Amino acid sequence: MKQAEIRSDIAWATPSKVVVHGLDLCEEIVGKIDFGQMAFLQLFARLPEARELRVFNAMMVILVEHGITPSSLATRMTYAGAPEAVQAAVAAGLLGLGSVFVGSLDNAARLLQASLPDPANVPDVDALAQQIVEDYRARKEIVPGIGHPFHKPIDPRAPALFRVARENGYDGPYIRLMTAIGNEAEKTLKRSLPVNVTGAMAAVASEMGIPWRICRGLAVSARAVGLVGHILEEMRQPLATALYLRTEHEACAHLVPNEHEEPR
Amino acid sequence: MKQAEIRSDIAWATPSKVVVHGLDLCEEIVGKIDFGQMAFLQLFARLPEARELRVFNAMMVILVEHGITPSSLATRMTYAGAPEAVQAAVAAGLLGLGSVFVGSLDNAARLLQASLPDPANVPDVDALAQQIVEDYRARKEIVPGIGHPFHKPIDPRAPALFRVARENGYDGPYIRLMTAIGNEAEKTLKRSLPVNVTGAMAAVASEMGIPWRICRGLAVSARAVGLVGHILEEMRQPLATALYLRTEHEACAHLVPNEHEEPR
Amino acid sequence: MKQAEIRSDIAWATPSKVVVHGLDLCEEIVGKIDFGQMAFLQLFARLPEARELRVFNAMMVILVEHGITPSSLATRMTYAGAPEAVQAAVAAGLLGLGSVFVGSLDNAARLLQASLPDPANVPDVDALAQQIVEDYRARKEIVPGIGHPFHKPIDPRAPALFRVARENGYDGPYIRLMTAIGNEAEKTLKRSLPVNVTGAMAAVASEMGIPWRICRGLAVSARAVGLVGHILEEMRQPLATALYLRTEHEACAHLVPNEHEEPR
Amino acid sequence: MKQAEIRSDIAWATPSKVVVHGLDLCEEIVGKIDFGQMAFLQLFARLPEARELRVFNAMMVILVEHGITPSSLATRMTYAGAPEAVQAAVAAGLLGLGSVFVGSLDNAARLLQASLPDPANVPDVDALAQQIVEDYRARKEIVPGIGHPFHKPIDPRAPALFRVARENGYDGPYIRLMTAIGNEAEKTLKRSLPVNVTGAMAAVASEMGIPWRICRGLAVSARAVGLVGHILEEMRQPLATALYLRTEHEACAHLVPNEHEEPR
Repeated sequence: MKQAEIRSDIAWATPSKVVVHGLDLCEEIVGKIDFGQMAFLQLFARLPEARELRVFNAMMVILVEHGITPSSLATRMTYAGAPEAVQAAVAAGLLGLGSVFVGSLDNAARLLQASLPDPANVPDVDALAQQIVEDYRARKEIVPGIGHPFHKPIDPRAPALFRVARENGYDGPYIRLMTAIGNEAEKTLKRSLPVNVTGAMAAVASEMGIPWRICRGLAVSARAVGLVGHILEEMRQPLATALYLRTEHEACAHLVPNEHEEPR
Repeated sequence: MKQAEIRSDIAWATPSKVVVHGLDLCEEIVGKIDFGQMAFLQLFARLPEARELRVFNAMMVILVEHGITPSSLATRMTYAGAPEAVQAAVAAGLLGLGSVFVGSLDNAARLLQASLPDPANVPDVDALAQQIVEDYRARKEIVPGIGHPFHKPIDPRAPALFRVARENGYDGPYIRLMTAIGNEAEKTLKRSLPVNVTGAMAAVASEMGIPWRICRGLAVSARAVGLVGHILEEMRQPLATALYLRTEHEACAHLVPNEHEEPR
Repeated sequence: MKQAEIRSDIAWATPSKVVVHGLDLCEEIVGKIDFGQMAFLQLFARLPEARELRVFNAMMVILVEHGITPSSLATRMTYAGAPEAVQAAVAAGLLGLGSVFVGSLDNAARLLQASLPDPANVPDVDALAQQIVEDYRARKEIVPGIGHPFHKPIDPRAPALFRVARENGYDGPYIRLMTAIGNEAEKTLKRSLPVNVTGAMAAVASEMGIPWRICRGLAVSARAVGLVGHILEEMRQPLATALYLRTEHEACAHLVPNEHEEPR
Repeated sequence: MKQAEIRSDIAWATPSKVVVHGLDLCEEIVGKIDFGQMAFLQLFARLPEARELRVFNAMMVILVEHGITPSSLATRMTYAGAPEAVQAAVAAGLLGLGSVFVGSLDNAARLLQASLPDPANVPDVDALAQQIVEDYRARKEIVPGIGHPFHKPIDPRAPALFRVARENGYDGPYIRLMTAIGNEAEKTLKRSLPVNVTGAMAAVASEMGIPWRICRGLAVSARAVGLVGHILEEMRQPLATALYLRTEHEACAHLVPNEHEEPR
């Protein structure tokens, strides 16, 4: 059998040295760069410029914590059964970051990047937005990145992120296109559909040149931090066992014959 | 059934506002604090002081990337089968952060914190270290946090982290105890056993008042970032398929009868 | 907030009784039905007829074990890091059962069921197959369920499964359509493309009335058994650590400067 | 670097043949053995005798389905976020099968096998049980395998499994020791503590010569089947989204200031 090449360019080590993406861990990383810079380095294989770092940090801090969600409940349920395996509880919570929650971020970024493959060569953004909204309507699909079932009329995280982006010089065609898509959808569907946090993040990531395929990875790594916070709270102040017992009782009570015995 | 209380104090939201650990996400977090501060906030429910943040960042950046490991290979193998589910590939890599790799960090931190329950009331550290090494020897267990199979004679990450800790005023009894344990083990076992990165991290975390149970969570969340970096490389420059085909061939060749047919 | 109903109909218990899908666990299941029947009961909420059970068993036994695969390697890598968490090692291996491997089963079953929504009302199967192959060609997609990179010219598992199905009276339009698709693709693409194990399984499942969405679940549950077998072998005869050390050496050697120090 | 051997003895294939544990998949497995036999073959590398198979089946069917548990809720929460990744939802549910739930099975089997290393050479079982109960009491640990918080006074699954074991000739020292431990604990602790399902399973597995380290694997593979059943119900009749919204509301309501805005 021919041997295909097996090669990785991320890191290497000798007994006295560790090098990550070309930087000496002990001399150039520890004590020199912070966690945000390190995350950027690991994802993009280079250190960020100051303005890139500020916008990257803004995106990451938004992604860390979303409260009691299916994801944080999966983490807490897993911790209740396997408290010795904190890594498994974090993993369980990450597993639900799929098409329903984080997928809309990928989808919005893909839509923007496919619609504007060359940001230096921008067509009429309003016409493009109109075309996009029509296409989604014709296919009976939901346009990603606009509207929010709870944060109405405006998802406050979208303008907050756009503000940081603008202050750092990211204010180009992807942000304009995303905004135009929201406006166009509002006109067509006759209800308030401003850009939501997902759309804002997709637009800002596109401005920064971040490929859409990476967006889910950003979300997953930030959320891992968030889920550890839920485990720490579950250690101090557990809710998983009470919640499952109560749910079992409610979900199954209709099955138990009304006899001499009490269900759980 | 009595209803047990179900309560979480991490975050809350109204349509126009999101609050995490008491801070308004859009007003006080986005654009104001960075990813390292946010991680600290999520884990400790308060913002770090400047010196805490510098040492926390130093610990986190060390934990992000460890090259080709069982963990990064599990991530890459999973990505090869389910490229549409990046979250599953990260989760698969986290799952192996158990007793063999990250467990030594927990164990070292637990040893230090159990041995010095009150850092304000410190006994003779050398006598304590001697006792600890004797106890582990008697139980035929390996003392956590010292020696390294590859980084010999010294794991360069340990002095790098201790330096950052010292520069920021963390230079107390846990670091002294960990160092004394290394010295004592070298004397008893007659080979070089300096504090390794795990021992250094456990000692510094203990100086910062971080409970040992949280240490694995720090490692898991930093490594999630690292694993996303491996997925990005696997997208550009895959190795998983070549590695599995080659491994299958080598592992199973002895089973295939030497006949007319070729095994894979 | 209005309370949506939370209800499950799978199982219930009183202190003296456990009931699963309407059967008393201690009186009607333990010692009365076997693991294959129980799996069928859990998936379809009723016991199988004898002929259904024989074909279901035939599908399940094919799915259990596929040798050294990305999935079994992810399990072994995870076990190497967390031997105390066998459940995490099994989970890691399951996570890669996505679009590349098991997805083709879903896709083939979906194709068959969408093409023949009513098995009692079957059009000309050859014309339908011709249309399907043309559609895939026009979209430049691979037709699922036919051909195999290694099992050439014929995947022996396909005729083996079709034989069991036929012996038990499952020999209807879905099997005919799947076979016709293979024939048609061979004619069009001018190479041998017989139905593979995935296509056979999709066709037989469709004959049995199993919805395509469930097919991945069958594969996942059978493979969980298989992965436990790999963990047991890894306990006795480990390969993960040797494999990762060797891979690290090979993948990163080109990065290490040719100096006084030896890389790992 | 010296190359360590990488070898697996489970399966091999040529283009026209697949062999698993020495049996030809297409000739000797498909249509010839059922799912229970295949699971036994995969775990023990040989086919079971008829009586072994009956008892193995009895253990497996008990393990499949346990109703609404933290594990099945983690699966359903994950499915709600990533319905396209059924494998991830099953994996999430498996991850919580740790020390709290399935760990007691390992612990009970380990206790029995460590206490009676040679089943052909059995000491006074009552004296041994007395010693065991005293040791656990002295260490303030809970004796595994006896008593149940809900199935009182008797867990009905224990006698059901013991009955099948006895009918098949498994009625030896491990079952006697487990029973004696229950009796002894009742005498010492002055409350009803009969052998529970976990204790019964541990005793029967020990009679069959199944090493305690494998017991968790049995449970994990059976439960994978069970979790697929929960996903199928969640597809038809979802509860995860209602449960998380309700939980979020209840858990966080105390944080929301009593103002003009409504929390979720």
